[in-house]
Amino acid sequence: MTLNYLMPTRMILEDDCLYRNRFLLGELGRKALVVTGKNSARANGAYADAVRALEANGQDHVLFQWVMSNPTDLCVHEAGALARAEGCDFVLAIGGGSPMDAGKAAAVLAVNNIPKEEFFGLAFKTALPLAAVPTTAGTGSETTPYSVLVDTTGPGGKTPRKEGPVKRSVGSSLLFPRLAFLDPKYSMGLNRDITVHTAMDALSHGIEGMLSVRASHISNLLARESIALIQGCLDSLCTFPPDPWALSREVREKLLLASSIAGMAIAQSGTVVPHSMGYLLTLNWGTDHGRANGLLMESFLKWCRAREAADPSIAPRIPSLCSALGMDLDRFCGVMEQLLGKREKATEKELAAWGAMPMKNAANTYIKPGQEDIMEMFQDALAPGDAPR
Amino acid sequence: MTLNYLMPTRMILEDDCLYRNRFLLGELGRKALVVTGKNSARANGAYADAVRALEANGQDHVLFQWVMSNPTDLCVHEAGALARAEGCDFVLAIGGGSPMDAGKAAAVLAVNNIPKEEFFGLAFKTALPLAAVPTTAGTGSETTPYSVLVDTTGPGGKTPRKEGPVKRSVGSSLLFPRLAFLDPKYSMGLNRDITVHTAMDALSHGIEGMLSVRASHISNLLARESIALIQGCLDSLCTFPPDPWALSREVREKLLLASSIAGMAIAQSGTVVPHSMGYLLTLNWGTDHGRANGLLMESFLKWCRAREAADPSIAPRIPSLCSALGMDLDRFCGVMEQLLGKREKATEKELAAWGAMPMKNAANTYIKPGQEDIMEMFQDALAPGDAPR
Repeated sequence: MTLNYLMPTRMILEDDCLYRNRFLLGELGRKALVVTGKNSARANGAYADAVRALEANGQDHVLFQWVMSNPTDLCVHEAGALARAEGCDFVLAIGGGSPMDAGKAAAVLAVNNIPKEEFFGLAFKTALPLAAVPTTAGTGSETTPYSVLVDTTGPGGKTPRKEGPVKRSVGSSLLFPRLAFLDPKYSMGLNRDITVHTAMDALSHGIEGMLSVRASHISNLLARESIALIQGCLDSLCTFPPDPWALSREVREKLLLASSIAGMAIAQSGTVVPHSMGYLLTLNWGTDHGRANGLLMESFLKWCRAREAADPSIAPRIPSLCSALGMDLDRFCGVMEQLLGKREKATEKELAAWGAMPMKNAANTYIKPGQEDIMEMFQDALAPGDAPR
Repeated sequence: MTLNYLMPTRMILEDDCLYRNRFLLGELGRKALVVTGKNSARANGAYADAVRALEANGQDHVLFQWVMSNPTDLCVHEAGALARAEGCDFVLAIGGGSPMDAGKAAAVLAVNNIPKEEFFGLAFKTALPLAAVPTTAGTGSETTPYSVLVDTTGPGGKTPRKEGPVKRSVGSSLLFPRLAFLDPKYSMGLNRDITVHTAMDALSHGIEGMLSVRASHISNLLARESIALIQGCLDSLCTFPPDPWALSREVREKLLLASSIAGMAIAQSGTVVPHSMGYLLTLNWGTDHGRANGLLMESFLKWCRAREAADPSIAPRIPSLCSALGMDLDRFCGVMEQLLGKREKATEKELAAWGAMPMKNAANTYIKPGQEDIMEMFQDALAPGDAPR
């Protein structure tokens, strides 16, 4: 057995935890760069709570509220420049994965002079401390050392990138938030699609975490727990009420905790091939990240099961995954189909292009898929053919 | 649900992990205070591995090898003074709980001018970074923010303390080690008693963690996992081989991982009343800390079970504990008796004195024991009467 575990974030889950534990925020610095998307942090009350906490602490802040879904390198450079110009000495990121990932990058860029074309892959030795307030229950960014961004810059700093934008990930232990404030109330009003798709994201983190070459005893413990928590919410998700506020607080809380625990798992193990494949759907179709993972899950898991059955040299992991899910794979795939509804379908041209692309996370998968396997998974998940679904 | 989770230590479990990951040690500073007991760190090879790693990094070190079992305030002040005099900028603690807890205190005292009579209870804002190398599998100090020491100093700095020495605990997030290197090879030769008693310590951390008022969703997950890992070793402990080296590496590794995971649990939840009670056995009889916890476990758990049965307002925890143990309470107590062998017995005078003393961790117990309950537990665990054991 080998193990290399690190997750240094203080996680607090409690009603009104941001305000109640504001003294912890007070330890981070004098002036915050508050990073949010355009609307949701104001609509769900998280921004108001943050301002109340900062003011009670006598801390100043400046707001960067321009994070879009799938934030670009350009956006985070702007946020970093604002932090620098305003003399911010910490970052408070509020929102789903996009504002949190953007906040992490801004925390680096505020104190490192990194040209846009060099941000990905460059090592950095310092970053502002960051607190994260997740307002959706999916990304787990509040407990990971990753920032996933859209790279739009080509060589020499030229934009747009000739080959088109690409989703890339920056990983560093400096990107773990110092603090994660988990307050389920911010997610109470999220509609059916956002709730289901973010839950799919968290679930894919748990599942992919278990199927990573870097899975360890502790990452598996965490991944299984996140899966079990979400499994306990699947019925509620399948019968989502017409009024999103009618989904119980208990379910919202479970989903939020599950997503943070799944984040703790992938902070160790990373994700595997469906995540890389899903990025293409998000970039090309604008498919929500969690939904993209969900669309590819069945094909991937069935491919794993077939490979395990065919090759006795592979130590099987699907049985252990099914025990965490509390159901067999076919039943689980049935639930996923119900949650996904009508699947997006790719054209032959798209399938040919995507199936030929190398996938970064393939090497992290416990059974490394070849290019033909990736093509087959795309076909199976997205082809318009008449295969029964 | 509320949750407040923090465990920022990087844990590495791997053969030869100290040398292989020496670059991490290299990030801690220029000169180490290496803290060990008198013999074991040399006998098991850990000190030699540490020197090899430090030298390969070009790091200097000075050795403090005078930590006794149950280290005193005087001992850790000496270690802190040595670190200061020698200009050490980090601490490397190698051994069981005693050297690790002493190393933590030295890391504080090296950079804080704290008189001996004020160390316990005083807040401090800085400490040297520390790496821990556990060579027994019990204390979990490598993943906790606690240092448990023997206070021998009375008011005005007078020693010995008039009321006699007392075990006291210092807790601060600054005391989490930065690094924990878990290498089962150092524990391979530990004899039957040390192995069993340290396993009892780890087991008591898991069990008490589940029975704390501060238990949380994540601390319970960790506590249950540590309990399950040790449960999987109980048969091997009950049939301990005449040659300690014949206990399999797999069992040693499981015990070591279990103790670190139990440490992660009590880092959140703290321990409960048996720990405070056991300190008296250690101080008065020199009973090993883990054995002391083991001696008190049965009486405590049966008291909890009886109180749960008698009072419907108590949310039962013993059933969940038994599910983690994979056996009912009576069977578990039978295994503990087998491992404990002949019990120590207290005199009437000792029982009367100890039973009348307030126990610090009582308030942390999910059912708060009154003084008469504590008296009853001592009686039940240690009385010479003819109650069947």
